[in-house]
Amino acid sequence: MDTGDTAWVLASAALVLFMTPGLALFYGGMVRAKSVLNMMMMSFGALALISVLWVLYGYSMAFGDDIGGGLLGNPLEFFGLSALLGTSGLEGGFQPESLVFTVPSMAFVAFQAMFAILTVALISGAVADRARFGPWMVFAGVWATLVYFPVAHWVFAFDGAESETGGWIANDLLAIDFAGGTAVHINAGAAGLALALVLGKRRGFGRDPMRPHNLPLVMIGAGILWFGWFGFNAGSALAANGQAAEVFVTTLVATGAAALGWLLIEKLRDGHATSLGAASGVVAGLVAITPACSSVTPIGAILIGLVAGVVCALAVGLKYRLGYDDSLDVVGVHLVGGLWGTLAVGLFASASTTAGVDGLLYGGGLDQLWRQALGAVAVLVYSFVLTLVIGVVIAKTMRFRVAEEDEVTGIDSVVHAETGYDLDSLGGGGGSATLGNQAHAEARGMTVPTERSRA
Amino acid sequence: MDTGDTAWVLASAALVLFMTPGLALFYGGMVRAKSVLNMMMMSFGALALISVLWVLYGYSMAFGDDIGGGLLGNPLEFFGLSALLGTSGLEGGFQPESLVFTVPSMAFVAFQAMFAILTVALISGAVADRARFGPWMVFAGVWATLVYFPVAHWVFAFDGAESETGGWIANDLLAIDFAGGTAVHINAGAAGLALALVLGKRRGFGRDPMRPHNLPLVMIGAGILWFGWFGFNAGSALAANGQAAEVFVTTLVATGAAALGWLLIEKLRDGHATSLGAASGVVAGLVAITPACSSVTPIGAILIGLVAGVVCALAVGLKYRLGYDDSLDVVGVHLVGGLWGTLAVGLFASASTTAGVDGLLYGGGLDQLWRQALGAVAVLVYSFVLTLVIGVVIAKTMRFRVAEEDEVTGIDSVVHAETGYDLDSLGGGGGSATLGNQAHAEARGMTVPTERSRA
Amino acid sequence: MDTGDTAWVLASAALVLFMTPGLALFYGGMVRAKSVLNMMMMSFGALALISVLWVLYGYSMAFGDDIGGGLLGNPLEFFGLSALLGTSGLEGGFQPESLVFTVPSMAFVAFQAMFAILTVALISGAVADRARFGPWMVFAGVWATLVYFPVAHWVFAFDGAESETGGWIANDLLAIDFAGGTAVHINAGAAGLALALVLGKRRGFGRDPMRPHNLPLVMIGAGILWFGWFGFNAGSALAANGQAAEVFVTTLVATGAAALGWLLIEKLRDGHATSLGAASGVVAGLVAITPACSSVTPIGAILIGLVAGVVCALAVGLKYRLGYDDSLDVVGVHLVGGLWGTLAVGLFASASTTAGVDGLLYGGGLDQLWRQALGAVAVLVYSFVLTLVIGVVIAKTMRFRVAEEDEVTGIDSVVHAETGYDLDSLGGGGGSATLGNQAHAEARGMTVPTERSRA
Repeated sequence: MDTGDTAWVLASAALVLFMTPGLALFYGGMVRAKSVLNMMMMSFGALALISVLWVLYGYSMAFGDDIGGGLLGNPLEFFGLSALLGTSGLEGGFQPESLVFTVPSMAFVAFQAMFAILTVALISGAVADRARFGPWMVFAGVWATLVYFPVAHWVFAFDGAESETGGWIANDLLAIDFAGGTAVHINAGAAGLALALVLGKRRGFGRDPMRPHNLPLVMIGAGILWFGWFGFNAGSALAANGQAAEVFVTTLVATGAAALGWLLIEKLRDGHATSLGAASGVVAGLVAITPACSSVTPIGAILIGLVAGVVCALAVGLKYRLGYDDSLDVVGVHLVGGLWGTLAVGLFASASTTAGVDGLLYGGGLDQLWRQALGAVAVLVYSFVLTLVIGVVIAKTMRFRVAEEDEVTGIDSVVHAETGYDLDSLGGGGGSATLGNQAHAEARGMTVPTERSRA
Repeated sequence: MDTGDTAWVLASAALVLFMTPGLALFYGGMVRAKSVLNMMMMSFGALALISVLWVLYGYSMAFGDDIGGGLLGNPLEFFGLSALLGTSGLEGGFQPESLVFTVPSMAFVAFQAMFAILTVALISGAVADRARFGPWMVFAGVWATLVYFPVAHWVFAFDGAESETGGWIANDLLAIDFAGGTAVHINAGAAGLALALVLGKRRGFGRDPMRPHNLPLVMIGAGILWFGWFGFNAGSALAANGQAAEVFVTTLVATGAAALGWLLIEKLRDGHATSLGAASGVVAGLVAITPACSSVTPIGAILIGLVAGVVCALAVGLKYRLGYDDSLDVVGVHLVGGLWGTLAVGLFASASTTAGVDGLLYGGGLDQLWRQALGAVAVLVYSFVLTLVIGVVIAKTMRFRVAEEDEVTGIDSVVHAETGYDLDSLGGGGGSATLGNQAHAEARGMTVPTERSRA
Repeated sequence: MDTGDTAWVLASAALVLFMTPGLALFYGGMVRAKSVLNMMMMSFGALALISVLWVLYGYSMAFGDDIGGGLLGNPLEFFGLSALLGTSGLEGGFQPESLVFTVPSMAFVAFQAMFAILTVALISGAVADRARFGPWMVFAGVWATLVYFPVAHWVFAFDGAESETGGWIANDLLAIDFAGGTAVHINAGAAGLALALVLGKRRGFGRDPMRPHNLPLVMIGAGILWFGWFGFNAGSALAANGQAAEVFVTTLVATGAAALGWLLIEKLRDGHATSLGAASGVVAGLVAITPACSSVTPIGAILIGLVAGVVCALAVGLKYRLGYDDSLDVVGVHLVGGLWGTLAVGLFASASTTAGVDGLLYGGGLDQLWRQALGAVAVLVYSFVLTLVIGVVIAKTMRFRVAEEDEVTGIDSVVHAETGYDLDSLGGGGGSATLGNQAHAEARGMTVPTERSRA
């Protein structure tokens, strides 16, 4: 046990927790004003539900002893986590080279919980404006159980860590995914694509303007994500050591380069560098460096980030050409950025880093690259197919999507009986424009109990 | 001295500091647009004032040597704190079992300062829209001096820590209040009730809709509180150890369960799960687990959180039935949630945790339960009575409340000569609806110097 | 190597990173609604660009071996930073007394990167509403290279740290600037003044009201700055020790006192204490205590903060009298506050603190005071002159400023093809008042691609 390592892992867990409210703002600002609350609620709902499932059986499914083939941990091994109270550390190692854990089991539990939560929340960007909240919550719980927990086992459960025998990608394939390019970003991105297909396009998609209603909110969200991501990546060292510090620097610089890349593409293509582009570039860079942050030099990180910014800036246009309504670009940013970052390990990895592996461009040949590709494809296919099945079942049984007229009215008032803003009290003659909650409700002949209920 | 423990306590102090701006947003978003600045100013004012008082004599009153009966520390022992410069650690223990302090005195000073600040700020939610800023600042200073500093001594000053002899609840009663269910939440909640009674109801209370003007702001605030609360609770271990990690997990999962509980009640009762409910459930869960976070298992934490969400969701309706205008539910969330969490220690405490005590449901009998109840009631009564007296004196001497017509106009423009938003420059023909600062001011025949003054 | 120290430095680096998005909000809320995105983009752009330059050659220019006279580090010594991978710590000391570094080189790199980024971003407040984004980015890169990196070398590069021979202020002059009163605040403030002169006044300066469009945003920003500043100051101890804890306390209390001081001046002068004043006072206090936080007692910190609040509250009015349009008071807050804090070390330093020096008021004579004054003036003059030259060259070659009619329309829609808010979807008859992006664009006969592009 080491107090410094524990302090860093706990601080990192808090930072990663903060990413989910940050994501709620990032997504919330991008939708129209009439959908902001529903958008944020999908993140908050995931935070609430997945934390409970994680304690009950999620941690066990991910980090319990493997029950065969590296595919799943034993869901009952640490059910409810009481067995971990007072355990003073994990045996074995998170890294293949068998770094000995120096933090309490519960610190690792908390840190990893945040990854499960965030991954689920990320998906919600694909179904903005149209997913009913109840079915979303059912989806969140089922998806975490059938998709995230197993995939986290594949990628994050190293043999000899909490589980004596862990997942296949970590221990057999030996793909490098330091902080979740596959388990988090490709996973969420593929699920987002599947769910967007299940729910179908928003009314007016590709025709009506659906502009971000609050870009400062988007930028606050991006800022919080940036901040929290240092816990996500550098915290994944599970120690306050040189590796954590190197990861910190690669995470910083890849992000900066990606934002520059995205803005450059915008400027060249559209003549304007936008704040939405800056915020998006930041996230694209963070996504791409996530799997690679421990295995590339700072110069490698700049290149990975720059390419991520350029590629994702181009990829977000695909939905209009191919006709799927991935509303807030979970595919264009997380799937594409996650794929690029995961493959980039096979290209840019340098043995001078703590990961100690050379990629193709550093003379390491194709060995690491095919491992990366296979891991990425496996997660992509598994997540896409399972999500499609889960989504269709929920859509058939629960009415996943709001009615068309409710989309026009706005999902916030229909589903949550609230609207995001009410500026009427600042004055003006009748609130004609930023029609507040009250007027809005009356216009629709309904009661809006947005104060905490008076019951 | 341990650098890891120190790193965690310093990081936690920063996290708890961040809770006060977070609270300002949480509260600020809930009031009407014309009161948002006044609401936020009560938190910022508390932050400014209490930090100075804490350094001058507050820390000494809380953690100086007891001057008799466990009721108060010596206010002059560490006046100005210069005596603590260079002291390398506290002797004795924060926990009854005499955990030796391994952090610099000044780190403990900083961490505890944030608790004093936050507790004062919490009270402001009870008097939204109607408290003049000057009298509020007087109240804040007097209340901290006469109520918070003594109560912190009762609850947090363990014998043999900085003070050789500490407070009666910590050392004689042996109630368990790990991070402030009594000293912070019951204390602030009881004070809020008293102050709401002193100031009286807002004009239109129970009749006019007083809806949150900016729910995304409420959710940002809840997110920041959630994030910061990990410092509040897990930082209270005063070390980066297994206890801190366990507390981290119970804090996470109780919060998630409480949000689910609150949303469930809303859905069953009103047919809608709201974002205000989610944000409120989060805070209710955080409040309830605060005293109990070190003494219950993760499963116990789920149960405490779930009940907190349900009970507080019901409790916030009381003000309409009983007719007190606790505007933002300091009573319903902090008093009720704090009482429940404090009593829950007596029910759910498990000797398998680091607190090492069994509650009623774990075969420990009533022993811990009555200790918890007595501690809770003592703080509640002391805080309520003293606050009533302080409030009445200020109301009689300083005009605590704005005039009725100023409530209609809006306390921001009357008291602070500002309004929260001015979107006029985005265009439109005359700013008819979101009437900005200028038009608003002109309508009232006054000058609004909301730029930094030109004097 | 010490894991606790490393944990604290990494956490502090994350905290300081968060200050730049915080600054974007603080500044963004203060401008008119039509300029909020441009304002925020200047901070985000600085974050992106400077992080890349820092990795390439900035760190080397600041902390590489001195190439003569203590004026500049060798830009090639750590080009790209690969040479620092795996290095286990710095030799020598950050403090004159030769504190041995116990953190990985890369942690120090990351921490110091954030200072470079923030300093550049601070300048943008002086040129609100009128700087084109492209030229701003060019300015940011050139200014960092020619001004910040050298000045950081002067102030922060101690002999025997990473560089065998460091900068002249740190090692020869022996001025005390613990966390950047000269290198960050005087530097940015002087540059802001020069750039405001180069760009000229906004249309309507001193005549039209230019009120903050979103004061809650300003207060969120101030809250984030407050939070992050604990990393800035206490992290500058580069260890989780007693010095970090003392710095934490002085930083807290000076800030509180400054906010009280600013509000008091407002109340006495204008009859109102404003939220803009509270937020400004917070920042003024943080600026002033930055150089002094390690060398004064908590009582000394209260005095420094109080004076900072009063002096800066008066200083922000200078621009109207002297006729320079330092739009968001970079001069009044950062230059004036930085000068005061740097000089205050010479007055209030106490040998009872970890800095171990007595100032004038503690019987130390004028020795420290003239060192402080000389350091402050050197940075002020260097920064002002160089910035003037850089600014004029860019203005002559690139059209730094938008056209006058574009200022009226709003820089966001002209330069970034976006507007900050679009609340139309909340309803109302035609969006007459908070005219959204679409209507706004149509009124100007242009297309507004604020969704991520469909290309």
